[in-house]
Amino acid sequence: MTRFKLTIEYDGTPYAGWQRQDDQPSIQGSIERALHRFAQEDVTIQCAGRTDAGVHARGQVAHLDLSKERTPFQLSEGLNFYLKDEPIVILCAEVVADDFNARFHAVKRTYEYRIINRRTPLAIDLKRAWHIPWELDVSAMQDAAVRLLGTHDFTSFRASHCQSKSPVKTLDTLEVTGEGDTIIVTTSARSFLHHQVRNMVGTLSLVGSGKWTAEDVSAALQAKDRTRSGPTAPAWGLTLMAVTY
Amino acid sequence: MTRFKLTIEYDGTPYAGWQRQDDQPSIQGSIERALHRFAQEDVTIQCAGRTDAGVHARGQVAHLDLSKERTPFQLSEGLNFYLKDEPIVILCAEVVADDFNARFHAVKRTYEYRIINRRTPLAIDLKRAWHIPWELDVSAMQDAAVRLLGTHDFTSFRASHCQSKSPVKTLDTLEVTGEGDTIIVTTSARSFLHHQVRNMVGTLSLVGSGKWTAEDVSAALQAKDRTRSGPTAPAWGLTLMAVTY
Repeated sequence: MTRFKLTIEYDGTPYAGWQRQDDQPSIQGSIERALHRFAQEDVTIQCAGRTDAGVHARGQVAHLDLSKERTPFQLSEGLNFYLKDEPIVILCAEVVADDFNARFHAVKRTYEYRIINRRTPLAIDLKRAWHIPWELDVSAMQDAAVRLLGTHDFTSFRASHCQSKSPVKTLDTLEVTGEGDTIIVTTSARSFLHHQVRNMVGTLSLVGSGKWTAEDVSAALQAKDRTRSGPTAPAWGLTLMAVTY
Repeated sequence: MTRFKLTIEYDGTPYAGWQRQDDQPSIQGSIERALHRFAQEDVTIQCAGRTDAGVHARGQVAHLDLSKERTPFQLSEGLNFYLKDEPIVILCAEVVADDFNARFHAVKRTYEYRIINRRTPLAIDLKRAWHIPWELDVSAMQDAAVRLLGTHDFTSFRASHCQSKSPVKTLDTLEVTGEGDTIIVTTSARSFLHHQVRNMVGTLSLVGSGKWTAEDVSAALQAKDRTRSGPTAPAWGLTLMAVTY
């Protein structure tokens, strides 16, 4: 048995999310099907962070075990061959220690959230960004983002169905940058609560719109109540950029 | 009668190109259909540069005449409403002089060509970039690009079915920049021959691959013979960025 680590890129648009489902297309399901065709084995893969329907990845990581002997190059080329009609690509395959765990050994996850801020709808960036048609104040968003850095109880930014044991997380990065009509929110932490990034971005959008102040963001955080923070930003603006071990 | 200038963004993937065709989807056809629904008039639009099948635009320009009274805001909002199920967006509508001509009055057209240079296939950037899996030498491409600047007979870079009266064009910009695995070729001129940008990029890719030198590019230009230059780069890497008047 050999354990492999995969680094994966995908366009999340046509999928119901990472997690395998019986009746809907999923990224896990497509990769496991390709693995079956490649190695004639039933292989289960485990990823670093299960992305929701419509969320993209440029650096998702997953691990799997193969009983047949295969080189990393054979594995990545073989999977990419069987995935060639889907927007999923294995960027890299590596042999790792038998106890490597893509989910539990990750020390940092980095996400990027993309907003396009212009009056007119999107054409080229449809399903790749959140379209906000009223003007956002990027500098106010930057000031408010700082309020969420560090170790906090993020209950106010947690989905009701989140399965994490504790709502306490340490946010290492939350940066807002603007260039032209594109606003990028970059965030990293050891781990996030379910919907935490999208709820933080939704809340920052209220600040950018002038409806909330940075003080309101601090108050929402302290309230430890999901109904006190902003809306959940749409899935299609979010991309899992990297997982660090 | 009022003449309007439209600035248009589109994802060229689902279209057979700009030009209206009886049996295939086209950008011109979709916009003219939306115009008919908006103004109950049969209106013909003329663009600055007819893009080929699969080519994108972030700043195509076109003009049209309306006999009914409409404000630019009504026109852009109305067209975007009727185009809402297609990846075509009117970024801006303006009233212009009755003799304004989107094609003949343009003084500069700017195109961007995107290459992704990595071994593995594309997922997120599928149909938005040319995937070249072997390593390209960006600095060699930069040196060779300079050889094409200025006024020349570009016959070697001209499609056989090009309808331009003269093969002599003045190339103002041809810049190659690399960041990560993305290589962008930016080029501008008053006008281009048919396929000129894609043929120049295809030729530069030979230089990047180490098959050609900058000297070979000069020789190809001087040969004034299409069979002496490189291949035509695929349509999906190309975006019409801006037209200047």
